Amino acid sequence: MAHKNIVLHADWIVPIVPANVCLQDHTLVIRENIIDDILPTSQWNPKNYEDQIEEIQLKDKILIPGLINSHTHAAMSLFANYADDVSLKDWLFDYIWPIENRLLSSNFVRDGTELAVAEMLLTGTTCFNDMYFFGEETARACIDAGIRSTIGMTIIDFSSNYGSSAEEYLRKGQIIHDKFKNHPLITTAFAPHAIYSVSESMLSKIAILAEELDVQIHMHINESNPEISKSLEETGNTPLQRLDRLNILTERLMAVHMVETREEDLEVLDSKGVNVVHCPTSNLKLGCGIMPLHKFKERGINICIGTDGSASNNSLNILSEVKLASLLAKGITKNGSILNAFEALEMATINAAKALGLSNQIGSLEKKKYADIVAISVNGIGSSPLFSPENQLVSKGGQNKVTDVWVNGKRLVKNCELVTLDIQSILNKAKLWESIVKETQ
Amino acid sequence: MAHKNIVLHADWIVPIVPANVCLQDHTLVIRENIIDDILPTSQWNPKNYEDQIEEIQLKDKILIPGLINSHTHAAMSLFANYADDVSLKDWLFDYIWPIENRLLSSNFVRDGTELAVAEMLLTGTTCFNDMYFFGEETARACIDAGIRSTIGMTIIDFSSNYGSSAEEYLRKGQIIHDKFKNHPLITTAFAPHAIYSVSESMLSKIAILAEELDVQIHMHINESNPEISKSLEETGNTPLQRLDRLNILTERLMAVHMVETREEDLEVLDSKGVNVVHCPTSNLKLGCGIMPLHKFKERGINICIGTDGSASNNSLNILSEVKLASLLAKGITKNGSILNAFEALEMATINAAKALGLSNQIGSLEKKKYADIVAISVNGIGSSPLFSPENQLVSKGGQNKVTDVWVNGKRLVKNCELVTLDIQSILNKAKLWESIVKETQ
Repeated sequence: MAHKNIVLHADWIVPIVPANVCLQDHTLVIRENIIDDILPTSQWNPKNYEDQIEEIQLKDKILIPGLINSHTHAAMSLFANYADDVSLKDWLFDYIWPIENRLLSSNFVRDGTELAVAEMLLTGTTCFNDMYFFGEETARACIDAGIRSTIGMTIIDFSSNYGSSAEEYLRKGQIIHDKFKNHPLITTAFAPHAIYSVSESMLSKIAILAEELDVQIHMHINESNPEISKSLEETGNTPLQRLDRLNILTERLMAVHMVETREEDLEVLDSKGVNVVHCPTSNLKLGCGIMPLHKFKERGINICIGTDGSASNNSLNILSEVKLASLLAKGITKNGSILNAFEALEMATINAAKALGLSNQIGSLEKKKYADIVAISVNGIGSSPLFSPENQLVSKGGQNKVTDVWVNGKRLVKNCELVTLDIQSILNKAKLWESIVKETQ
Repeated sequence: MAHKNIVLHADWIVPIVPANVCLQDHTLVIRENIIDDILPTSQWNPKNYEDQIEEIQLKDKILIPGLINSHTHAAMSLFANYADDVSLKDWLFDYIWPIENRLLSSNFVRDGTELAVAEMLLTGTTCFNDMYFFGEETARACIDAGIRSTIGMTIIDFSSNYGSSAEEYLRKGQIIHDKFKNHPLITTAFAPHAIYSVSESMLSKIAILAEELDVQIHMHINESNPEISKSLEETGNTPLQRLDRLNILTERLMAVHMVETREEDLEVLDSKGVNVVHCPTSNLKLGCGIMPLHKFKERGINICIGTDGSASNNSLNILSEVKLASLLAKGITKNGSILNAFEALEMATINAAKALGLSNQIGSLEKKKYADIVAISVNGIGSSPLFSPENQLVSKGGQNKVTDVWVNGKRLVKNCELVTLDIQSILNKAKLWESIVKETQ
């Protein structure tokens, strides 16, 4: 049977693995949905390929692995710039939860996820780790668009239009897991909301079930100081002490936020192999603070990066987070060399793949991995001169121009245009939800 | 004589003055180079205007005052991403000054300024406060492009290809002042580099001359801790104590950086009416730290914002700085309400106009001010839904799509394209300088 090969000739390739490398004038060969080869363009010979070949010239472009957003609530794209200039507690209790209580539905999640996926693809994200309600809708929107995702089996003690008890959320999550467990684009993870919103007995159960189902755990932890002081006041223990006792602190855990981190926290996170997810914009915007990235880095703890939901960002541009994380680390340590450009990009690629349990499949441009690939233009005003492509990538952040995106070998963005999604229909729905939200206020 | 009127019908106008206002469905009338009126579009009647009228529909767009970059070294755009992942001292002594010593010339400044102006116009900057060498070239590049600027009469004790002594820099600066003092787009300011690079006797002289010529003073101050400890060690006084004694601390001063700020500094800055210029990206990137914006704000000190040069940023996108400043202020105070979107925008508009001594001319969309105006699109993925145009502006930061720019009534950007500058020629020169820099290394 003839295979289709797509051959990408790029000015630069930053493969992420091996580390600290920017290849110049290289060619990447995609065979079906797999990266088949990466070689100097001068060594490329079409005669070596008997099958059908599509050659694409990527002049003035950098190829990087598809970016991974390690923490978001995709459907909340419909609440972008809905609640600004307020701190976390007011944001959550006075704005977000009340409007969610009124509007949450399968349609909302479907439409919101489509809007989010459109933004993510156009900005180079090829995989995201989601925590929200009506996860089946999220999964279906991803499959239809062709993007990869880890769907949260979200669990919270509060009732919503999606479920009335933690047990019900759990059951619904397990149904999602069973339904999509063999899908090539979809994985699932338990997503207990937080220590203050999920009971200890449920967290214990999740720890056991995560082992049984062989899935990750995705949870907000140490987002702000009140979370810790409340836990200490109510139980005499910090959130991490309690989570350790409940067997949640393992290599399966993606601990999101970790703004408030004490020395003893680092010790236990390190020894248990926990992954942390840095959400710098969200933490600043909501007045939570700045995660001490350097302290995790010193110990070699695996650091990933996320946008959080659009309501606390207000966008889903993961390169914007990479830039901000890089700058913040330098500023708070007063050390301009604390994190180089490659290390910054690793947070949105290979580190995230490791945390999601997918490091043998995605997260770098290596032979035999899935062809999740992003092309970024470094042409034009703002990109010239070009002394260091990798630093240019990081310092342009959200201003990078993503021109093409492949996920699992399929081209989902072509010359800055979405291939699988109908932008106008998505925007019309967003406008409709905008008016519904305004009427609901 | 017939006047030409340009009539802009916009979905939203954020005039900055009055404060905290976002006008919906309003029309702005430009008469020659002046803002003639702002009124609800429903009240607009072409019959009220006898002269020639050009009407422009700005659907799904926000009009804001032309943005002001209060601190840059424009020509250093040719060193963007030349020196990354290093701290201030190494950056300056090991990278920037050596390469400047070899390459600085009037051609370099001319070409670098053109590249910088292209980027600034395309990202909504209509006026910038510059500190660099060969200021006459900078001024001419601005005049040719049509952008407004304050040209630094740069003074430093070190010799360069531009001058061999502080006295020579001073003479050259005064020639620039005399040459351009009547030009409608150009003003000048004394720009002594820093306390560690300009002698006290020269600073005293500058204080006197600034009064005589009625110009501002633009200076790097308290950028990093070593600057202060060195000053204390050598003189027993902090930089601000010395500058106060030298009569530099007045309403004419734009004190750039101010990362290291003590309580007694705030007291004197406040009492003397000094303006501060926040350069958040540069301060983070070079490992200097974070300026405590909230402390200046508490006292009502006038806060402006700058990109610094491209070599320490690596771009000249002022909305990116506005976004970062807004986020940082919230994060370091752990208060999501510390600075609202309008206040954040004021730093790049009316506050800067005040600091430059131009607040009766620019910095807001008000009748009788010069028509320096920027249109930003809020259409498409990433801009919908839209609950708060002003928050959307700030949180999109450098990702905002600037579609049109007028300076002094002249349209310099039309549908995202430069009108007065030849992009291809600018990019060709940038590539040429890129190869010269690489050969020089």
